[in-house]
Amino acid sequence: MAYSREALIEAVSAQMPDKRWKHTLGVMESSVKLAETYGADPVRAETAAILHDVAKYWPVERMRDIIEQNGLSKELLSHDKQLWHAEVGAFVAEHDYGITDSEVLDAIRYHTSGREGMGILEKVVCLADYIEPGRDFPGVNHIRKQAKVSLEDGLVAGFDSTISLLLEKRRIVFPLTVLARNDLVRILEEKE
Amino acid sequence: MAYSREALIEAVSAQMPDKRWKHTLGVMESSVKLAETYGADPVRAETAAILHDVAKYWPVERMRDIIEQNGLSKELLSHDKQLWHAEVGAFVAEHDYGITDSEVLDAIRYHTSGREGMGILEKVVCLADYIEPGRDFPGVNHIRKQAKVSLEDGLVAGFDSTISLLLEKRRIVFPLTVLARNDLVRILEEKE
Repeated sequence: MAYSREALIEAVSAQMPDKRWKHTLGVMESSVKLAETYGADPVRAETAAILHDVAKYWPVERMRDIIEQNGLSKELLSHDKQLWHAEVGAFVAEHDYGITDSEVLDAIRYHTSGREGMGILEKVVCLADYIEPGRDFPGVNHIRKQAKVSLEDGLVAGFDSTISLLLEKRRIVFPLTVLARNDLVRILEEKE
Repeated sequence: MAYSREALIEAVSAQMPDKRWKHTLGVMESSVKLAETYGADPVRAETAAILHDVAKYWPVERMRDIIEQNGLSKELLSHDKQLWHAEVGAFVAEHDYGITDSEVLDAIRYHTSGREGMGILEKVVCLADYIEPGRDFPGVNHIRKQAKVSLEDGLVAGFDSTISLLLEKRRIVFPLTVLARNDLVRILEEKE
């Protein structure tokens, strides 16, 4: 069953506190802008943005059950719980909200970690999640500036800020994020 | 054929400029001290230290030939040439200098990148390479201070400084180094 845009917004906004829904509205806005700037489909980018945090406020046990019962990446369980909601979100988008567009699902699945070989919708939503108007953290303006150069420059700045923060806090750095960032650095080197 | 300590020093020092040999003398000194402090064998630590940079000044083509002709990690060739000398060094230590102690060989092989599950000799030589008395780079005193807390604290500080520098310079971050650093962070968390 496919949801209309309005029905999707109503259903997803009910899954999270108002503050997080406000963040989602920001990611929708920034995803549409980035898609228009860099030649992605703004409608599909917005759909992924609406759904990207659908599972963010679900109880950990509910996410664990979905990961274990549906054969999602077992490796995920050994990583920070912050990463679970993205993979679970993609599963929920497909099974509960009828999304069949694999690029939209991947944009949800990799919006937090990134990965090697990111497609344009993945890049758009991941970068929008860093720079949406409500974001206010040290370094966000540098990422916004780089996002005006290219999707890749923006994302390298975003991933670098995440990796630096995790080093500083002595927390685990998700290897996929480093692979994603290296991949983008190689793409930018080849452009030069 | 096994070399005496003196013969090994003579043969290895001839493979590099005086300045690099001076660095090796520093790594030997620091490796012996760290080994004595943290309960590793100082003699084996010193042997690994003598040999750790044996291939550092070899021409790139000579290193490439050894990697390709001897089935060393092909992945290595896609990474920064700075990393090649460690794997090639371990090969040379075994085949040209008769080293058969697999822990000494691993200490040479992983002295630049680190890896998950580092043994004590690997930790000692890798950390000594960061903090030997001749080293002078931003942050080295923080690493020296952490090295007094534990091998793991010292190495996390060292790897963090390497990763931060590579981010800053927009260079590729070797994934093995991130895995090594995450592994040590987990070990330190379990100690708490």
